[in-house]
Amino acid sequence: MAVYTEVFDDDLAEFLTHYDIGQPLALKGIAEGVENSNYLLMTDQGPFILTLYEKRVKEGDLPYFLGLMRHFSEKGVACPQPVPGRDGTALRRLKNRPAAIFTFLPGAWPRRPGVAQCGQLGKALAEMHLAGQSYPHTRANALSLEGWEGLFRDTGHLADEWTPGLSDEIAAELAFLKDNWPHDLPTGVIHADLFPDNVFFLDGTLSGLIDFYFACNDLLAYDLCICLNSWCFENQREFNATKGLHMIAGYQSVRPLTPAEIEALPILARGAALRFLLTRLYDAANTPKGAMVTIKNPMEYVDRLRFHQRVRSALEYGLRP
Amino acid sequence: MAVYTEVFDDDLAEFLTHYDIGQPLALKGIAEGVENSNYLLMTDQGPFILTLYEKRVKEGDLPYFLGLMRHFSEKGVACPQPVPGRDGTALRRLKNRPAAIFTFLPGAWPRRPGVAQCGQLGKALAEMHLAGQSYPHTRANALSLEGWEGLFRDTGHLADEWTPGLSDEIAAELAFLKDNWPHDLPTGVIHADLFPDNVFFLDGTLSGLIDFYFACNDLLAYDLCICLNSWCFENQREFNATKGLHMIAGYQSVRPLTPAEIEALPILARGAALRFLLTRLYDAANTPKGAMVTIKNPMEYVDRLRFHQRVRSALEYGLRP
Repeated sequence: MAVYTEVFDDDLAEFLTHYDIGQPLALKGIAEGVENSNYLLMTDQGPFILTLYEKRVKEGDLPYFLGLMRHFSEKGVACPQPVPGRDGTALRRLKNRPAAIFTFLPGAWPRRPGVAQCGQLGKALAEMHLAGQSYPHTRANALSLEGWEGLFRDTGHLADEWTPGLSDEIAAELAFLKDNWPHDLPTGVIHADLFPDNVFFLDGTLSGLIDFYFACNDLLAYDLCICLNSWCFENQREFNATKGLHMIAGYQSVRPLTPAEIEALPILARGAALRFLLTRLYDAANTPKGAMVTIKNPMEYVDRLRFHQRVRSALEYGLRP
Repeated sequence: MAVYTEVFDDDLAEFLTHYDIGQPLALKGIAEGVENSNYLLMTDQGPFILTLYEKRVKEGDLPYFLGLMRHFSEKGVACPQPVPGRDGTALRRLKNRPAAIFTFLPGAWPRRPGVAQCGQLGKALAEMHLAGQSYPHTRANALSLEGWEGLFRDTGHLADEWTPGLSDEIAAELAFLKDNWPHDLPTGVIHADLFPDNVFFLDGTLSGLIDFYFACNDLLAYDLCICLNSWCFENQREFNATKGLHMIAGYQSVRPLTPAEIEALPILARGAALRFLLTRLYDAANTPKGAMVTIKNPMEYVDRLRFHQRVRSALEYGLRP
């Protein structure tokens, strides 16, 4: 839920002089995304999304993200498209923030994703991974091992307030992952945050992906493990292997996993769980009281991490033998 | 800013089986209104607004409000229209709450209303008052003198936390208003909350009014005084008589005020300032911490109340002699 920056009608009128997208009919702040300010902009040519980038997104990364969305769309991966102004530029400034207009992606994210949706997501993720292979730009993953260590230094001491001993548990997991993290798996552009609220469905069919502001170059199978974490648990903590089976099968129908990737799934899943545990701890500690943002519970990812620690083989995720 | 109740895609699909408004393309929670949950619903027939009524609106009052919006629209007052389902009913239930779909009113509310907009607002308010004369239903104003006394009993003791002595000041004002409130002025349907965020403009022209959930039968000139309070102050506390002049002149171009109404303007303006002072004190005391609502500062209305207490004649509001 987020509208951080209020856009006045005269601000909008000036901004729209740079575009050929018709006359504005309405601008509604929408409760979507937690990193940026998002508005639904209606013009006489139809709906658009206006995004203002707040401080958490680095301005220097925006050309990578916007170029990626353009690239994906050219390759047939449905996602919002940055709309260029008359000068050909999609990225400009509004209210002293970087801002861009995007095409409107129809659909709604699934509040209770089912088995069929997990299967479609797996397939779309693999298609995105293949499409990303030809994207010429790169961006390091700021939230991989080194980033996790930094987050832990900043907020690890607060972990015990959530549950006694959690700080030690995280330290041990970090040490384990550092020693065992795979480095020779296939890499490419990953979404890195493909939770259900970033995937739209229309009439039961996946209609597109949104929110590429964590995208980076990293292990492809790690991206799949982020999705296993965020789509396949019931009641926040029980892994649903049927959903996992459909997600992995959907993925492999487009891009078969290598034997090394399959073997690495449990450790990649542990890393993914730890990543969201750490950022949630960080967000809980750093969100000002009264901010119009719902704090997400870090403990859900403690349970998921412990689940993955017990997993002995990718078969337990639903991989077909 | 408000989205209190989350609507899932299957909830929406079931709800829409009652309507002939096309296939849903998107449902976006919008940051508008603080009393209800509002969604922008896009279908292949265009945009609509879906409203879920939260507990602050009495369910028994909804037929009055929805009927009023229908009546106003028939009389040429632009406002959202309740969309009837196939059974002819506009009001049904969704997520265990009363809910209705409305036509989409284009436009945006003015963040910095200027003189010309104040003039248009005055004219639209008078047109609404005339149109309301033929509405056959009535609803008492729950937030008139008696309501204010009730609010003061509940939250008056907290007023001194905002500024020392405020509680006594309010008590004295309540006593004064009780002794001096006019009872023989023209009455009719009033909006009772026509702040700038409830009035849309498109290309500089007033395109319609929204949010009729405080509408009731009361003194028409009191409604104008609510607008003088909410549209005509600069920097929250300095009355701009040029804006007042244009608003009153706009109003009188459609419905001339009676001499008794003109004489009563200062006391009605005091009442209006006190009403919003009291409800803001109440809201500040009763909004749970962390609720995704911006607390509005009650003190703005202390300053406005004190201004009105010094006013000796409606000429000071910009009334043309």
